[in-house]
Amino acid sequence: YFFFNGDGITERHRKFHRFSHKGDFGRVMLVGGSYGKIGAMLMASAAALRTGSGLVFAHVPKCGVGILQTSIPELMVSPSEFEEEVGGKFSFPGLDALGVGPGMGKGQRAAALLHDILRNFEGPLVLDADALNLLSDNPDWYDLLGENTVLTPHLKEFERLVGPCADHFDRMEKARLFCRNYGCTLILKGANTLITFPDGKQVFNASGSKYMASGGSGDVLTGMVTSFLGQGYEIKNAVLCGVFHHGHAGELASSEKRRGTVATDIIEAIPKSFLHFDVG
Amino acid sequence: YFFFNGDGITERHRKFHRFSHKGDFGRVMLVGGSYGKIGAMLMASAAALRTGSGLVFAHVPKCGVGILQTSIPELMVSPSEFEEEVGGKFSFPGLDALGVGPGMGKGQRAAALLHDILRNFEGPLVLDADALNLLSDNPDWYDLLGENTVLTPHLKEFERLVGPCADHFDRMEKARLFCRNYGCTLILKGANTLITFPDGKQVFNASGSKYMASGGSGDVLTGMVTSFLGQGYEIKNAVLCGVFHHGHAGELASSEKRRGTVATDIIEAIPKSFLHFDVG
Amino acid sequence: YFFFNGDGITERHRKFHRFSHKGDFGRVMLVGGSYGKIGAMLMASAAALRTGSGLVFAHVPKCGVGILQTSIPELMVSPSEFEEEVGGKFSFPGLDALGVGPGMGKGQRAAALLHDILRNFEGPLVLDADALNLLSDNPDWYDLLGENTVLTPHLKEFERLVGPCADHFDRMEKARLFCRNYGCTLILKGANTLITFPDGKQVFNASGSKYMASGGSGDVLTGMVTSFLGQGYEIKNAVLCGVFHHGHAGELASSEKRRGTVATDIIEAIPKSFLHFDVG
Amino acid sequence: YFFFNGDGITERHRKFHRFSHKGDFGRVMLVGGSYGKIGAMLMASAAALRTGSGLVFAHVPKCGVGILQTSIPELMVSPSEFEEEVGGKFSFPGLDALGVGPGMGKGQRAAALLHDILRNFEGPLVLDADALNLLSDNPDWYDLLGENTVLTPHLKEFERLVGPCADHFDRMEKARLFCRNYGCTLILKGANTLITFPDGKQVFNASGSKYMASGGSGDVLTGMVTSFLGQGYEIKNAVLCGVFHHGHAGELASSEKRRGTVATDIIEAIPKSFLHFDVG
Repeated sequence: YFFFNGDGITERHRKFHRFSHKGDFGRVMLVGGSYGKIGAMLMASAAALRTGSGLVFAHVPKCGVGILQTSIPELMVSPSEFEEEVGGKFSFPGLDALGVGPGMGKGQRAAALLHDILRNFEGPLVLDADALNLLSDNPDWYDLLGENTVLTPHLKEFERLVGPCADHFDRMEKARLFCRNYGCTLILKGANTLITFPDGKQVFNASGSKYMASGGSGDVLTGMVTSFLGQGYEIKNAVLCGVFHHGHAGELASSEKRRGTVATDIIEAIPKSFLHFDVG
Repeated sequence: YFFFNGDGITERHRKFHRFSHKGDFGRVMLVGGSYGKIGAMLMASAAALRTGSGLVFAHVPKCGVGILQTSIPELMVSPSEFEEEVGGKFSFPGLDALGVGPGMGKGQRAAALLHDILRNFEGPLVLDADALNLLSDNPDWYDLLGENTVLTPHLKEFERLVGPCADHFDRMEKARLFCRNYGCTLILKGANTLITFPDGKQVFNASGSKYMASGGSGDVLTGMVTSFLGQGYEIKNAVLCGVFHHGHAGELASSEKRRGTVATDIIEAIPKSFLHFDVG
Repeated sequence: YFFFNGDGITERHRKFHRFSHKGDFGRVMLVGGSYGKIGAMLMASAAALRTGSGLVFAHVPKCGVGILQTSIPELMVSPSEFEEEVGGKFSFPGLDALGVGPGMGKGQRAAALLHDILRNFEGPLVLDADALNLLSDNPDWYDLLGENTVLTPHLKEFERLVGPCADHFDRMEKARLFCRNYGCTLILKGANTLITFPDGKQVFNASGSKYMASGGSGDVLTGMVTSFLGQGYEIKNAVLCGVFHHGHAGELASSEKRRGTVATDIIEAIPKSFLHFDVG
Repeated sequence: YFFFNGDGITERHRKFHRFSHKGDFGRVMLVGGSYGKIGAMLMASAAALRTGSGLVFAHVPKCGVGILQTSIPELMVSPSEFEEEVGGKFSFPGLDALGVGPGMGKGQRAAALLHDILRNFEGPLVLDADALNLLSDNPDWYDLLGENTVLTPHLKEFERLVGPCADHFDRMEKARLFCRNYGCTLILKGANTLITFPDGKQVFNASGSKYMASGGSGDVLTGMVTSFLGQGYEIKNAVLCGVFHHGHAGELASSEKRRGTVATDIIEAIPKSFLHFDVG
């Protein structure tokens, strides 16, 4: 493994030319939210927009439609047929990437939707939060993961997926085995986020700040990685760029706000991080 | 055709004197929105306000009333009689210009309202988004276009209107024929937006940035052109000023935000573009 | 009459000492709003807060409660018993000033409430917008005006109150007669707002900008005058301070935003105007 | 007693190390809100986030859910089972601190919830606003206070708790007796806020500005003290840090906004106060 301090990050980004259009910047969807937990979807969606997606859709329960539209005019909102949770079949053609889980809850309907996505969505897919919790409740779904899947657990979600870990070395080993077994990529969030690729290679991210340890920080990461995937990055670059700029944006935001930093501050700092590393 | 790089843009703007009142700055209405697609109306309406309209009305479905009022206090909201779509008869006297289409959907009720507007509204009229899609579904409505109509399609909407285009020269030719046949003005949005006037003259706009290729950018343009029309600009000047400042505001916004630029950033940059070109 | 250019404005303001509390800064209420026209109440209420009121209440229809609370956390919202309009009896003890009319509509219920206020509220009272329109529909209510009443019509509302005016001199004369007859103060809004006091003295305000001629500008003035009245200013000073700082805040806002200036920009500039004139 | 002017404030703060996570920064809940009075909860919750809490929950009536989620994406919202008030049993395990009262109203259901909290919640507890009013209506609940309880009355709420006070010395004496009797800490808000500890020691806070005397200022303090308690501060330090930074943030905000300062300005200035005193 090695520590990634951003060396060469600029080159990992796609360049866009003068005649790029919305389609080139990608069409992504975030799926999640439940009654009282819509904020997570607000942050993931806003982060995807700030990361550069051309079109961002949010699939949320009906109770979230007005909330999202009031806060983010640029967002296309796809209402669930249910008032308080997402659910049912997945039928959204033409998406370049999908991020599932923020604030989604663990209800049966949400579970059914996740299962449907795992079986049928073939593009790049990010699983976070309750999508991970539902996954660990249904270990027979693990085989539906694959090279197009990125999991972004924090420590507790990770242990639900792979079982209790004795120490940090055990965690690293379990992450490596998990990714090799299921062919997926895994972002284990923490003070030094650990990225594990399907071939077992591991990278610690060096950017970030202790002041990012607050509610919504993870939702922002989900939106960022989903956005880069939708912009056509190969998975390795999408994950490295997402994790690194997330941490760096958090450093920029917290240099002024310290422990008063909130997740929306990180979102607003994303473009500053792009500017800092001369990302086009 | 020629490239318009803003030379003489200041002179194309109306001057307002010290004793101008709300009426002089015009009274415009935006019509559109549907369940889950209210954000487009938020952006068009906010853009019209920032472009200088004295009074901006938004006619939206009931589900959009609270969303618009929460976000834009200056907006007068005219609720549709329907919960999730606009529709019915058009009866709004005293408007100086009308912009129709953002987020409107293609339902029968919306179609009926558009048809009614095309037949009965005699002032300057901007058609965008689903208004264009409905129009291309009803080619017998083309004859209702005229010298007061401005169409703002992107490439796909354009081809729905005029049929598939072989290449860029074909597009230019088809745009010229369309405008000559129907006596209207057409803004074909793209990296270099092409404006075609009723007499067949064509102008490529030189301002803009690839980072404007994201959701809502077109809605902002609709609001800007509608606003200038409502301020009493002749159509040629309204279109040139709208397209040019839209692009220039996008340049200003994206110089700091790069691919993190979102449509509301463009709106906020409109006054900076006015200041840059010393527009009063 | 004379032109007021702000000379001595600082001295017209109340001073507050170190041990002032919420009560000293006053307790005011704005009354108005109707379905689709809640924005006017948002602006009047926000303006009252920015002008310095200790506590601001807004009495609005039920459809406005969520809108106001989402946008202005500092506001205390008093819901009408009706969904789409205010109405009924007035029963709000302990108010230092009351502003009535923004977005209120002209329904029977709103009319009944206004009538009740005119008969029973004894503190300083500002009437604007639909409150003025209702008043001109009921000339027998004119006798309920008095030394505690401030009317803030624009030109059309003024002519509804006093009849058509031949020219500017006629307007001045009719304003003087109206204020002498009914013992009230009148602010005739325009490029140079004309203030008429009960004794017939008249003052033209010299601050302001043509770019303030847009929707909501008048609602902001209503909030400002109501706020100063609630802070315990005598009526003459409240009116002069309200009108002058409103215009000056508009100048400050529009120096950067020009015709892109919207009413909420004026609100945000109020504290800058206080700072500029060293108002404590 | 002595005046606290911030000497040594930096040392009273907890340090957080590089590997801190959300849990270290604490998990707090604010409880309150009622129909028309949701803004108080918005301000208390936002203040808790800006003060550094890792996770902030708000328990509010159903009518407040959308309002809070639209305004504060980082907030986890826990809906009451009732539309217009909180109520019922308290069952929220795992909280590091609890703040009760902002905008809560004095209904029977809210009273039942407060009583349940007083009897069963064992962590640090802040009581404000209507929680104090309910408490003074039920003097037999005083014995449920204790060393983990902080009361934050303004003058009127204080007199409801302890009876009328003849003068300032009487107030100091009654506060000392109250805190000794019930083993709690009390913050008597005013121009120089008086803090009384369970041992009877008293401290006057020297920070603050007369321009903080406006609606919502107290709600901000509630959120700040609750946040520090949840971050694991001992009660004395949480109270001193909360009261001092609240006043100092108000000074920073009002230096620019003067009497136009509103409570959300204080919230936005909290991180600046941390930076000024080099709080990590």
